[in-house]
Amino acid sequence: MKKAAILGATGLVGQRFVSLLADHPWFEITLLQSSGKSAGKRYGESVKWVLDSQLPDKVADLPVEPLDLASIAREGVDIVFSALPAEVSVDVELELARRGLVVVSNASPMRMEPDIPLLLPEVNADHVEVLELQRRRRGWSGGIVKVPNCTTSILTLSLKPLLDEFGLRRVVASSMQAISGAGLTGLPSMLIMDNLIPFIEGEEEKVEEETLKLLGSVGGEGVTLNNSFAVTASCHRVMVLEGHTIAVFAELEKRSIDVEEVIKAMEEFKGNKIKGLNLPSQPEKPLVVKREPDRPQPRLDREAGKGMSIVVGRVRPDKVMGGVKYVVLGHNTIRGAAGNGVLIAELLVKKGLV
Amino acid sequence: MKKAAILGATGLVGQRFVSLLADHPWFEITLLQSSGKSAGKRYGESVKWVLDSQLPDKVADLPVEPLDLASIAREGVDIVFSALPAEVSVDVELELARRGLVVVSNASPMRMEPDIPLLLPEVNADHVEVLELQRRRRGWSGGIVKVPNCTTSILTLSLKPLLDEFGLRRVVASSMQAISGAGLTGLPSMLIMDNLIPFIEGEEEKVEEETLKLLGSVGGEGVTLNNSFAVTASCHRVMVLEGHTIAVFAELEKRSIDVEEVIKAMEEFKGNKIKGLNLPSQPEKPLVVKREPDRPQPRLDREAGKGMSIVVGRVRPDKVMGGVKYVVLGHNTIRGAAGNGVLIAELLVKKGLV
Amino acid sequence: MKKAAILGATGLVGQRFVSLLADHPWFEITLLQSSGKSAGKRYGESVKWVLDSQLPDKVADLPVEPLDLASIAREGVDIVFSALPAEVSVDVELELARRGLVVVSNASPMRMEPDIPLLLPEVNADHVEVLELQRRRRGWSGGIVKVPNCTTSILTLSLKPLLDEFGLRRVVASSMQAISGAGLTGLPSMLIMDNLIPFIEGEEEKVEEETLKLLGSVGGEGVTLNNSFAVTASCHRVMVLEGHTIAVFAELEKRSIDVEEVIKAMEEFKGNKIKGLNLPSQPEKPLVVKREPDRPQPRLDREAGKGMSIVVGRVRPDKVMGGVKYVVLGHNTIRGAAGNGVLIAELLVKKGLV
Amino acid sequence: MKKAAILGATGLVGQRFVSLLADHPWFEITLLQSSGKSAGKRYGESVKWVLDSQLPDKVADLPVEPLDLASIAREGVDIVFSALPAEVSVDVELELARRGLVVVSNASPMRMEPDIPLLLPEVNADHVEVLELQRRRRGWSGGIVKVPNCTTSILTLSLKPLLDEFGLRRVVASSMQAISGAGLTGLPSMLIMDNLIPFIEGEEEKVEEETLKLLGSVGGEGVTLNNSFAVTASCHRVMVLEGHTIAVFAELEKRSIDVEEVIKAMEEFKGNKIKGLNLPSQPEKPLVVKREPDRPQPRLDREAGKGMSIVVGRVRPDKVMGGVKYVVLGHNTIRGAAGNGVLIAELLVKKGLV
Repeated sequence: MKKAAILGATGLVGQRFVSLLADHPWFEITLLQSSGKSAGKRYGESVKWVLDSQLPDKVADLPVEPLDLASIAREGVDIVFSALPAEVSVDVELELARRGLVVVSNASPMRMEPDIPLLLPEVNADHVEVLELQRRRRGWSGGIVKVPNCTTSILTLSLKPLLDEFGLRRVVASSMQAISGAGLTGLPSMLIMDNLIPFIEGEEEKVEEETLKLLGSVGGEGVTLNNSFAVTASCHRVMVLEGHTIAVFAELEKRSIDVEEVIKAMEEFKGNKIKGLNLPSQPEKPLVVKREPDRPQPRLDREAGKGMSIVVGRVRPDKVMGGVKYVVLGHNTIRGAAGNGVLIAELLVKKGLV
Repeated sequence: MKKAAILGATGLVGQRFVSLLADHPWFEITLLQSSGKSAGKRYGESVKWVLDSQLPDKVADLPVEPLDLASIAREGVDIVFSALPAEVSVDVELELARRGLVVVSNASPMRMEPDIPLLLPEVNADHVEVLELQRRRRGWSGGIVKVPNCTTSILTLSLKPLLDEFGLRRVVASSMQAISGAGLTGLPSMLIMDNLIPFIEGEEEKVEEETLKLLGSVGGEGVTLNNSFAVTASCHRVMVLEGHTIAVFAELEKRSIDVEEVIKAMEEFKGNKIKGLNLPSQPEKPLVVKREPDRPQPRLDREAGKGMSIVVGRVRPDKVMGGVKYVVLGHNTIRGAAGNGVLIAELLVKKGLV
Repeated sequence: MKKAAILGATGLVGQRFVSLLADHPWFEITLLQSSGKSAGKRYGESVKWVLDSQLPDKVADLPVEPLDLASIAREGVDIVFSALPAEVSVDVELELARRGLVVVSNASPMRMEPDIPLLLPEVNADHVEVLELQRRRRGWSGGIVKVPNCTTSILTLSLKPLLDEFGLRRVVASSMQAISGAGLTGLPSMLIMDNLIPFIEGEEEKVEEETLKLLGSVGGEGVTLNNSFAVTASCHRVMVLEGHTIAVFAELEKRSIDVEEVIKAMEEFKGNKIKGLNLPSQPEKPLVVKREPDRPQPRLDREAGKGMSIVVGRVRPDKVMGGVKYVVLGHNTIRGAAGNGVLIAELLVKKGLV
Repeated sequence: MKKAAILGATGLVGQRFVSLLADHPWFEITLLQSSGKSAGKRYGESVKWVLDSQLPDKVADLPVEPLDLASIAREGVDIVFSALPAEVSVDVELELARRGLVVVSNASPMRMEPDIPLLLPEVNADHVEVLELQRRRRGWSGGIVKVPNCTTSILTLSLKPLLDEFGLRRVVASSMQAISGAGLTGLPSMLIMDNLIPFIEGEEEKVEEETLKLLGSVGGEGVTLNNSFAVTASCHRVMVLEGHTIAVFAELEKRSIDVEEVIKAMEEFKGNKIKGLNLPSQPEKPLVVKREPDRPQPRLDREAGKGMSIVVGRVRPDKVMGGVKYVVLGHNTIRGAAGNGVLIAELLVKKGLV
């Protein structure tokens, strides 16, 4: 059992990490820290638990410490899961890596740095080798591995089979994102009730850039962005609790493709990069295709593969774009954040990097 | 005062027509008919009124008749507003036209017929001349004029200044449509609560086709579709009461355009086709541009221009598409349906066609 | 294994029955019938499945027959679960009982008949003996057993320990009911969006009467209503997917009670009437007390005991009423309908009545 | 024109004050102050405007100052409207009164002090005379007048005709309160989505106490609470934007009353305490009775009397309580807060107290 610390444990992504790691066969939660006001109390008392699943008792009794890097080292922690707020995360994560700890981080800073692996295992598990380059370059024995932006992960898992089979040129993505993506207190109800917000700060840039890194390649300097296609996004917040939906319009390299070939390519996508590794969080079918005309829908499909599968529907020809258009949904706090983080950690363990 | 009949008066669009015509300076509601179960009672008793505005008393006392074309002729009705269900509308509207009545219809059948004007006055008021061709061709003295699909009207009002100033090539439109668009009872709450539905039957085809007719030209046979650009759409239903929002990605003919030029073109769009006609329902600014980063929003912007203005925001460069992307919102039952219908009727009156 | 038929299988309560019986250790779904338009197709094709849980494959393949009593007899069905609409249910259920079948029915008609057991097992499992009286009186070998109204079951489970320990006089109940209670298509979204409806037809009468029967006693003629206390209710529909919440104000017989005694009585309530029977659906704690100030909440507490436990919170003195006031929540389609129905069926099997 | 200052101008109640005073015939907004981060910018730039009505331009250009009592005096302000947060309000309001200013305050502290008038003009406009006692007692020339708690005002307006005609004994009130009552950012969407919260801190105590003061009488020491009846409340937050709904169960002194007498008493309630004063904000019918079975509903009825009328429906006998039960709705930020505040200010002006 590897000892795990969760930083930012009381936030929404932190709660997801807690929920997923509480009874994990490989990890044991030994330390919870928060940069907020919760520090000092028992987790059960300080967290405003909002997940459907019950707060596990043994975790409820753990104390929530304030951020304290020395404590993390002292506890003999093997791996750190960071769900810290962006502005706090950088210094903390760099210092942890210097102190020899491996950090799997959901925070957005540093995701685009070439020597920091940005992982979506089914798609680019091989990028994990960049960790070695990182260690040499930065001179530390620890490491920082980043979890991609939620919308990006969901989009990229759906694009991978298309890129591999048909090539991509232009991809237009219009998202309808759940309120959980704004965090526990990030979105006042007065702003979203009977409304939608057509702007999520920084989101479109992340989708447009991180997708190119996830589908990029590893070179001497680290990861090089994929330059064979480009993404343009428009991201919006809607009144859904969990589950991001994206309308995708993809221009393909290959022309004159039967839409059935596209559906087949998506149905057969098995996430070969980690197939056979049998990681505990790995979904049997990372991509599920629905043929019903009105799917996917967040409330009905977000739990597919225990929240780790993306669900694609409405795959149909797009003559205007020269390719296909479809709708893809994924659980934003599991597949899009903490679940992916845990899968990454499992990959690191399997590869002997933790 | 022109005498007006409203068919399908108890449905949602019917209620909007009632609300807009109850105190209209040019029209007087003299007849209400319904194809449903409401027939026989007073309007106030039979309608399940859901609009924010009060049901006007004088209309509340009008009886709701069953569909009866003879009655319409008998009452000396000058103009008929049809909010009938699609499957019922065709026969009724054709017969009314044969009997010499002018019908302004919100029903979707027949919208694409070349000799039936599909009107969005600020954009193509000149298409109204097709009515003459229609009368000759079909041998009737009445006429059928169609109100475009709601999402299409909102999209097209925003595209018009772009087409005129810069030319269009490919347009990608991803909509987030309000529940009112499904009608009074069309969408059970169990289906949309904490959810979104990524499919609205027939909607994408309407958006893709009607836009080309609205921006088309009049020829010998009626209206010819615009063939200089094409639209690809993905239409979704979200938990918003009123107001359709569309994320638009537009590839422009003209390259290297400063986004400020685009914003200027949109701000200056005055709907010249009807400028100066002073029609009562005509908004002073058919297109309002918002510069705040998080606008437009349905709850905050749908009442612009009393529900007749569309609101555009987030206008920004789209290097991938080779043009611009933006978000546009419009009130789907006013600008997108009944309000547009009343404006069309005012145009017909002004042109002496009623 | 007992063979089970589900009537009204495609409605919301029908879907719950299907979900709960699909993998039941004692029951095997052998027949699905519907009084609606679904008849003739496979269940998977005809049902608009809205539950979070997946539609089990083996059930998806079952055909949905139209209502056909002869077929039920032919199939060797042991027990019938009826989720038929009220207006259809009476004739069907009476005929099934005449043909020797036992029907566990969620439909509201006949619930108040003295010789028809209305069961909430933890509270009045002993009323099941009335089935014998019913058989003699009505001269049939089958039987009809009724599932109480959802709000009533949730309220009554919370009142039982109070009645037993302290006696009740007046009970005021104000409910906030979930939209699922209106059925699959019963509540258009246009009516409930940014709204609440302060009236649910027939609901208050059911709550006021059925509570007295559930807490009544068995005599020579069947069940006599409890006449030691009375209930006054006001029932409202709110924008919650599942889970009915009730604010209760209870005047107690015993005066000068410490609220801690009341909480203790509720915490210790074990549903003795079925304790030890080990029925599969029986929750370990039929009543869970929450001490947090802002509980219970539907989204967070409706799954307690797999949807079979009610959750009580905010227990506090009510000096004005002379007793206590509290808030109770229960899963309306599980504890309040199908789950209770399955528990009743298990009780019947255990008692050798099926 | 009286010069008005609004403190706490950027919060939700502050926005309501701004909206109601921007074009008021008697008041002119000359000063806006905020205790938050908005200070220093133009109102239009700093406020996150969420009201349906447009932000009036002339107000948008006013600067928002930080809290500065000297500035208020300097500007020659005649009356101060306080929508300050509770914790900040006390010191500020006391100091303003000392400096000779009259403060109409929506903040909850000090509402129950006997020499501070708590006003609901239609019900107790005569309590305004207590201001004189307050001035003598506290030795200031200014004054503090309080706006009651929103739920209390709505409840009390409905109880007044019952108290006057039939006498009251016990009143049970169960509220379903809108999210706007929690303020602009007070309620995260993650907490209320598909949920309700059965606890609003301090609310029940306010309802139970303030009602007795509003319906109390003026004596030598100020206002004495009504001791002829008592209220017990349970207050809950639901997913409604604006409009508080309360289910009321009222035990009446007079027995054997026909429910038609009760409805008549409510319909005839004219708010005699201010009838004839013709205050601008005074609704023609402070209490509207609806006879439809499913009314009142927040979205449909909250704008009655421009948000200043309460709407009562479902009036029916309550044999258990010995009186009647009904449902009452009121606009919580207009009738329940700012609108009532403006009406109070108008009363003060009319009485020559400002």
